[in-house]
Amino acid sequence: MIGKLNHVAIAVPDLKAAADIYRNTLGAKVSAEEQQPEHGVTTVFIELPNTKIELLGALGENSPIDKFLERNPGGGIHHLCYEVDDITTAKDKLVADGIRVLGDGEPKIGAHGKPVLFLHPKDFSGTLVELEQA
Amino acid sequence: MIGKLNHVAIAVPDLKAAADIYRNTLGAKVSAEEQQPEHGVTTVFIELPNTKIELLGALGENSPIDKFLERNPGGGIHHLCYEVDDITTAKDKLVADGIRVLGDGEPKIGAHGKPVLFLHPKDFSGTLVELEQA
Repeated sequence: MIGKLNHVAIAVPDLKAAADIYRNTLGAKVSAEEQQPEHGVTTVFIELPNTKIELLGALGENSPIDKFLERNPGGGIHHLCYEVDDITTAKDKLVADGIRVLGDGEPKIGAHGKPVLFLHPKDFSGTLVELEQA
Repeated sequence: MIGKLNHVAIAVPDLKAAADIYRNTLGAKVSAEEQQPEHGVTTVFIELPNTKIELLGALGENSPIDKFLERNPGGGIHHLCYEVDDITTAKDKLVADGIRVLGDGEPKIGAHGKPVLFLHPKDFSGTLVELEQA
């Protein structure tokens, strides 16, 4: 079912400092900051030859990463995003297998403009999993 | 400097259960378990089209993931591994930039038989970073 690893998301307390380390010390290709007010985050992408790292900074009040940053004030890996061909087929299979889909259980349009689902970390050995229709 | 994301490592309390979820529910290609007594872990690889997920189970006494699993009893993402062309050049650049290399600061032969370094998570927004000479 799952295809490529679309990205690894890392929540960070200081987006500029994190981007600078990837750009200057690790010598990676780093995008400009992009504010996503409807998702409550500002994103920076580290473009690797085979996948992406998404740095997430909190934006506005009640950002979805606020609680994570309270528990991990220095930042940390927030989720993994795997690609799927069809998000509805994926959802049906997951629900049949007893996996908990977060929110109301229906796909939403994610930060990249594509349908996504988030799956409960307790069902994946402590890893928050995002599925994105590629 | 950094190239491909070689793998994402996830430390898990129950390697068989974690492998089964990836194999059966997520439909991924999953390797057999491989014991690595010299590294204190048993590994299972999830082979994705563009990278790998490395599931790590503790092996023997004093496994290097014991403390992580004490803090995260359900498991969690343990580190990211980026490829570099030359581990010594990478190390020199990192040290010059004030990055803390773990252990004695010298490359070691990692679980894949290649020279690796681990970098302090506090220097990378809470992410333990492994560099592997590709």
